[in-house]
Amino acid sequence: MAEKITMAHGSGGKSTDELIDTIFAKEFDNPVLDAMEDSAVVPVTGKIALTTDSFVVTPLKFRGGDIGRLCVCGTVNDLLMRGAVPAWLTCGFILEEGLDIGLLKELTASMAATAKEAGIRIAAGDTKVVEGHGGMYINTAGVGIFPEETSGVTAGICASGAREGDAILVSGTMGDHHAAILSERMEIETDIESDNAPLVDMVRNLLKSGLHIHTMRDVTRGGLATVLRELAKASGKTFTIRESAVPVNPKVKSFAGLLGLDPVYMGNEGKMAVILPESEAQEALQIIRKSRYGSGAAIIGRVTADKPGELLMETDIGGLRRLDVLQGEGLPRIC
Amino acid sequence: MAEKITMAHGSGGKSTDELIDTIFAKEFDNPVLDAMEDSAVVPVTGKIALTTDSFVVTPLKFRGGDIGRLCVCGTVNDLLMRGAVPAWLTCGFILEEGLDIGLLKELTASMAATAKEAGIRIAAGDTKVVEGHGGMYINTAGVGIFPEETSGVTAGICASGAREGDAILVSGTMGDHHAAILSERMEIETDIESDNAPLVDMVRNLLKSGLHIHTMRDVTRGGLATVLRELAKASGKTFTIRESAVPVNPKVKSFAGLLGLDPVYMGNEGKMAVILPESEAQEALQIIRKSRYGSGAAIIGRVTADKPGELLMETDIGGLRRLDVLQGEGLPRIC
Repeated sequence: MAEKITMAHGSGGKSTDELIDTIFAKEFDNPVLDAMEDSAVVPVTGKIALTTDSFVVTPLKFRGGDIGRLCVCGTVNDLLMRGAVPAWLTCGFILEEGLDIGLLKELTASMAATAKEAGIRIAAGDTKVVEGHGGMYINTAGVGIFPEETSGVTAGICASGAREGDAILVSGTMGDHHAAILSERMEIETDIESDNAPLVDMVRNLLKSGLHIHTMRDVTRGGLATVLRELAKASGKTFTIRESAVPVNPKVKSFAGLLGLDPVYMGNEGKMAVILPESEAQEALQIIRKSRYGSGAAIIGRVTADKPGELLMETDIGGLRRLDVLQGEGLPRIC
Repeated sequence: MAEKITMAHGSGGKSTDELIDTIFAKEFDNPVLDAMEDSAVVPVTGKIALTTDSFVVTPLKFRGGDIGRLCVCGTVNDLLMRGAVPAWLTCGFILEEGLDIGLLKELTASMAATAKEAGIRIAAGDTKVVEGHGGMYINTAGVGIFPEETSGVTAGICASGAREGDAILVSGTMGDHHAAILSERMEIETDIESDNAPLVDMVRNLLKSGLHIHTMRDVTRGGLATVLRELAKASGKTFTIRESAVPVNPKVKSFAGLLGLDPVYMGNEGKMAVILPESEAQEALQIIRKSRYGSGAAIIGRVTADKPGELLMETDIGGLRRLDVLQGEGLPRIC
């Protein structure tokens, strides 16, 4: 096989078959995918969660992760946020001509390893080739299932679920992925790592606990402020967070300060916000802290009803700042 | 809103919201999508079919169709080929900076209209923006369901299902989509139209008939020869087709002749091959001909056991030609 991707790899003929056999089928090996049909047939019960994301991140590899890990985490986390258990993944590859085939193998292996970690199986795939400069895009779509034993807990979890008297938690430090991507792209020497991670363990532990979770949402593009402002609007409640309580890795804090960036608008790929009754906040915090990827969790704010739909932040210098969703372009191709 | 797509439309913040509100949510309006959660939750029973495809066709609009219609047809047809009823679609948009927003609206409307025609609902979506020259890619993933009443028929339909004594049918003329895309790209004046179409009606009628269908497969990238050769290999049988029996639109035939192309290697996007017992072939033919998009159907060959895995073609001039899957790059970005 050639060392680089060529247009022939997108023909649907012999070269496409070779690529599938030597890379994708090898890494993603499972009985459903091996059938090589037009669609995979998988068993389910009752209802399913469905989600999709395209990944266009540059560079393809970055400190702490790569597009292969990222594309699994993004879709897995979206399923988890509805209380679903990630079950099946489809992946569509759009490869640019000139892509290094060794790199493609490495990224595919990373995808397979992350899928294994998250307990999701790859059910179907597709490959296209376009002109370009050796880059790639990956689209993933995910199917999640709702096991009987957690159905009572998950039924009520939704974007508009926040109630007066709720606490707002985050599962760890904000802005890590954003800072990792931006520092790579600016060729700044740092050891800031992306937090890209599947939050399976943390969500499973929360659901098993019997706590009354109202909302879970992963913090991605647009950062914490964008996510919380959307949830405040959806619920018609006021969200107030304390800037001093928002966890930020000191290295990310200095990096952001240097560039004039605000960590509450910097994206993550392995962190979530959780909203539940204040009386249960300490227990939730302990559960998240004991879960994988949750050691930096914190209670950062509360839900009230005085200014419907608003997100407010008590700043470090004692002021009260009204936060809107991210304006402008943020960091292009962060995920 | 600006007239062109900018990087800000991919931020995940305000501009992304505007794009979703004014274009996607408007066209794809349904209660599942409107929930605007991280995942959609949809009801299903028993088992589901899953498939995905990325669409990178250029130009975005062509005679007889566009990328919006194409991306729905491709995924719908993949679900149908397993005997599943198309139920839910996810769509991931990768937009290039500079894309005309009027054009995006038009393509989204075409997508919505095709989804409506095919009876599939859009459950989840995602939008990213990359640098470029005003183009776009769309990934669709589809979920199909298996209604109780056809489960006896669909259970046996698979890629390896062909048996000795079967007939091979196609649902219409070969190479139309390929010729339409290539003529657009070469700026050749023709009135050849793409056949991009959802084959819902045809497959429903076949499944209802109680005929013993062994294999259904849509004829796409790589053309009829690639598809049949793969099915011959999967079943370990010999497929023999008659060149004179393969339906080709006379305009496509002259176009192909002019360029030295072989219609059996030219892709379609609204045609299928059906394999079932020879004794049932006439009835299947009549059913397909009476179905939407099936008026040009024909019986083109038979299945034997003498040369396992081979695809042979009795040529117009009386020879016997051994056909392999497409070699080389075919027509890049045909779908």
